[in-house]
Amino acid sequence: MAMGNVIVGQSGGPTSVINSSLAGVFKTARDRGAKKIYGMRNGIEGLLEERYIDMSEYIKSDFEVEVLKRTPSAFLGSCRFKLPSCEKSPETYSKIIEVLRKLDIQHFFYIGGNDSMDTIKQLSEYAKANNITDITFMGVPKTIDNDLAVTDHTPGYGSAAKYIGTTLKELVRDALVQPINVVTVVEIMGRNAGWLTAAAALAKGDDCEGVDLIYLPETVFDINKFVEKVKDIQQVKKQVVVAVSEGVKTADGKYVCESASSSAMVDSFGHKALGGTASTLANLLAGELGCKTRPIEFSTIQRCASHIGSLTDVTEAFLIGAVAVKAAAEGETGKVGVFERVSQNPYLVGTSIYDVNAIANVEKTVPKEWIINDGTGLSQEAIDYMLPLIQGEVYPFMVNGLPKHIKL
Amino acid sequence: MAMGNVIVGQSGGPTSVINSSLAGVFKTARDRGAKKIYGMRNGIEGLLEERYIDMSEYIKSDFEVEVLKRTPSAFLGSCRFKLPSCEKSPETYSKIIEVLRKLDIQHFFYIGGNDSMDTIKQLSEYAKANNITDITFMGVPKTIDNDLAVTDHTPGYGSAAKYIGTTLKELVRDALVQPINVVTVVEIMGRNAGWLTAAAALAKGDDCEGVDLIYLPETVFDINKFVEKVKDIQQVKKQVVVAVSEGVKTADGKYVCESASSSAMVDSFGHKALGGTASTLANLLAGELGCKTRPIEFSTIQRCASHIGSLTDVTEAFLIGAVAVKAAAEGETGKVGVFERVSQNPYLVGTSIYDVNAIANVEKTVPKEWIINDGTGLSQEAIDYMLPLIQGEVYPFMVNGLPKHIKL
Repeated sequence: MAMGNVIVGQSGGPTSVINSSLAGVFKTARDRGAKKIYGMRNGIEGLLEERYIDMSEYIKSDFEVEVLKRTPSAFLGSCRFKLPSCEKSPETYSKIIEVLRKLDIQHFFYIGGNDSMDTIKQLSEYAKANNITDITFMGVPKTIDNDLAVTDHTPGYGSAAKYIGTTLKELVRDALVQPINVVTVVEIMGRNAGWLTAAAALAKGDDCEGVDLIYLPETVFDINKFVEKVKDIQQVKKQVVVAVSEGVKTADGKYVCESASSSAMVDSFGHKALGGTASTLANLLAGELGCKTRPIEFSTIQRCASHIGSLTDVTEAFLIGAVAVKAAAEGETGKVGVFERVSQNPYLVGTSIYDVNAIANVEKTVPKEWIINDGTGLSQEAIDYMLPLIQGEVYPFMVNGLPKHIKL
Repeated sequence: MAMGNVIVGQSGGPTSVINSSLAGVFKTARDRGAKKIYGMRNGIEGLLEERYIDMSEYIKSDFEVEVLKRTPSAFLGSCRFKLPSCEKSPETYSKIIEVLRKLDIQHFFYIGGNDSMDTIKQLSEYAKANNITDITFMGVPKTIDNDLAVTDHTPGYGSAAKYIGTTLKELVRDALVQPINVVTVVEIMGRNAGWLTAAAALAKGDDCEGVDLIYLPETVFDINKFVEKVKDIQQVKKQVVVAVSEGVKTADGKYVCESASSSAMVDSFGHKALGGTASTLANLLAGELGCKTRPIEFSTIQRCASHIGSLTDVTEAFLIGAVAVKAAAEGETGKVGVFERVSQNPYLVGTSIYDVNAIANVEKTVPKEWIINDGTGLSQEAIDYMLPLIQGEVYPFMVNGLPKHIKL
C-alpha cells in the first residue's frame, strides 16, 4: 500500500549531513509512493505559522537528491523551538494537529538532536492520549555533538570529526613551521560532551606529530596545571598545539571563558567583551609564558564543512532517514532510528528503531575511562571508536571551482 | 650538461602550495641531472647555522613528490629572517657563501614572498659585486596574500581563495538556518592587501546568497557607517554575513582591532586582551544592535587548507619552481619566475623570469576601481580575475579517513 502524505522538519544546529537525512526521508517516502511530501520551514516553529513547502517542487530529480546530500546546514531552515508541555499550552498541540489534518498528513518526521526528540516524544504522547491513531511521529537523530543516548553514534558527528582531524593535521604542519616558541590553542565545539574535541586525537600518526594536549569538558579544567603542562612541553619542543572544548570548566563549575570575561573586559566602545575559550587561554599563556600564542576557533565552520564530508556519515545519515520512513510505513510511532555497532573490525553497523523516551533529554558524554594522561589525551579505545566514522569521502559537485549546493 | 648542486629554501608564512613549488624545484633539478639537491632547514636562518638536508634521502619516489605537493606548510621549515645589508653585516654574507662553497652549490633557490625576494636581491648583488659568477640566485614567488608586484598572481593565493569561497558558501548556508536576527562577521587574512578578502565575493551565485558586505584594507573603514549599513540590511533580512580583512583601518590609520583593544581590555588574569577584527566588530554590533552576533576567524586554517587545494594553483606553483630551475640552469641569476595572463577567456597563462629588483619590497594591492558599492563589494572585473585561479581540485591521498602528508 502506498504511503500517505508525509511532512518532515529539521531542528537544532546545522550539520554537514542533516540534509542527507532529509534526502533519505524524501527519497524513501517518494519511492514508497507517498502522494505529498511536505517540508516544514524552520521546523515546528514554521509549522505553527503554517509555513511549509511541497518538497517535490524543489527536489525534482535524483541529481538534486545528490546535491541535497552534499549541501550543509538545514535545507528547510531550522529552529530552536522547545515544545511547551501539553498542560501548559494545549492550543499549541491542537494547532499542530489542525495543520497536519489540513495537509492530510499520515507521517510526521523530525530530524534533530535532544530537544527535537523531545518534540517527537511530546507529540506521540499527545496523539496517544487523544486517540489520534492515523498520524505517526518519528524522530531522525542528528547532532555533531554525538551526545544522543542509545545510538552508537549520531549522524553529523563523523563529518565534523573528519573536518577536525583533517584541519588539525594541517594546522600542526603550519604550527611547526617557524623555529620559535608558539602555542596554538584550538577551540572545538561541545558544551557538555567532548566527542568532537576527542576527534583531535585522530590527527596523530606516522605523518603527523598530533596535538599535544586535549581537554574535554568531562574532566575539570585546572588552569594552573594547564600552564605547567605547556611549560613542560616547551622544555622539549618549541611549538605546542592544544585542543580544548569550548565547554571546559574550572572546579567552581564556571566555563573557562566566563572566568576571564569579568567586568574588567569592556572594550573601548563600552561593550562587554565576550572571549572564547581559546582566546582566553591563548591570552593567559601569552601573559604567563611570554611567548607567541595563537587562538583558533573552528566555530560554525566545523558543523557545515560538507566539502570534506565523511562517506560513512553521509551514507548513514541517509540510511537513518530511510529507516524512519520504513518504520512509519509499518505503523511505528514515538520511535527513533538508531545505530548499533555489530562489529568493530570490520566496522559493521546495524539499525533499529527505539522508543524515543530513552533518547529525548538524555545526554551521552565521553566515557571517563577513555580520557587518559591526566585528562589530556584519549585512549586507543576512543580512537578505535571514532576512526570508522570518518572513513571515505563525499566530495561536492564542483562548479566554477566551488561546491554546488541547493537552496530554497 | 647536467646541473651542478642545488640548494633550496622556504621562507615566510606557510601556504597550501609552497611545497608544490619545492617539488617543482626538486623534481626539475633532479630530472636535469643535479648531483645533490639540498634543502635549507628554516630558510636562510638555518643555512647560517649549517642546518640542511639532502632532499633525495627524504623524497625517494615520484609518489612522494605527489604527497609533497599535497602537504601544506613548508616541508623544510620556514623563517622570518630579514637579511641585513652587506654594509651592516658582511660576515653574514661571507658565512652564506662559505656554506654554499662547502656544499659545492651552483644554484640557490628561495621560495617566498616580499622579504624572501629581497634575500635573493641582496645575495645576487653581493655575488655580482664580489665576482662570484659560479653561483646563481633565483627567487620562487609564494604568498597567500597575492601582493607581489609584476606577476599576474602568486602561488598560494588560488588555494586560499578557493578555501575562502568554499567555506563562505557553507557558512552562508549555516548563517541562514535560524529565523532570528544574527550577524556573522568573518575575518580574513591580509594586513595591507585585500586580495584574500576579495575572494569572499566568489561565494555569491545561483545557489548562494553570498556575503552582504565585504571590507578590504584598501579603503578606510568607517565604524559608524558600518553599523548603519548592517542596520539597513536588517530591514530587509534577518541574517547578515560580513567579510572583513584583518587589516581594515579607521581614518586615523589605526587597525579596527587596535581601536578596541584599549587599556580597558584586561582579563581577570590581569593580561591585556587581544581581540581580532571580527570579534571587535561582532562585539560592537551586539552592543549597538542588540542582536546575536558571531565572529569567525579563518586564521591560519585558510593558508594551510590543502585538502581543498586549487588544481590551477598547485600546478602553477610546481611550474614556477620548474621555471626557476630551467632559468638557473641557463645561467640566469637575480631573477624570479612570474606569471603573465595571456588571455582571460579561456584562461591562459605564460611564465617568464623577471629582475627581482622589480618585485622585492614592493606591495601590490587591489585596484581601487575594483572596489565598488561604497567600499563594500567587488566588481565583475575582480571576480573575472579571481575565478580562474580557484579552478580544479587537488584532493589529498586519503589514508584512514584523513589526508596523507609528508614530514621530515
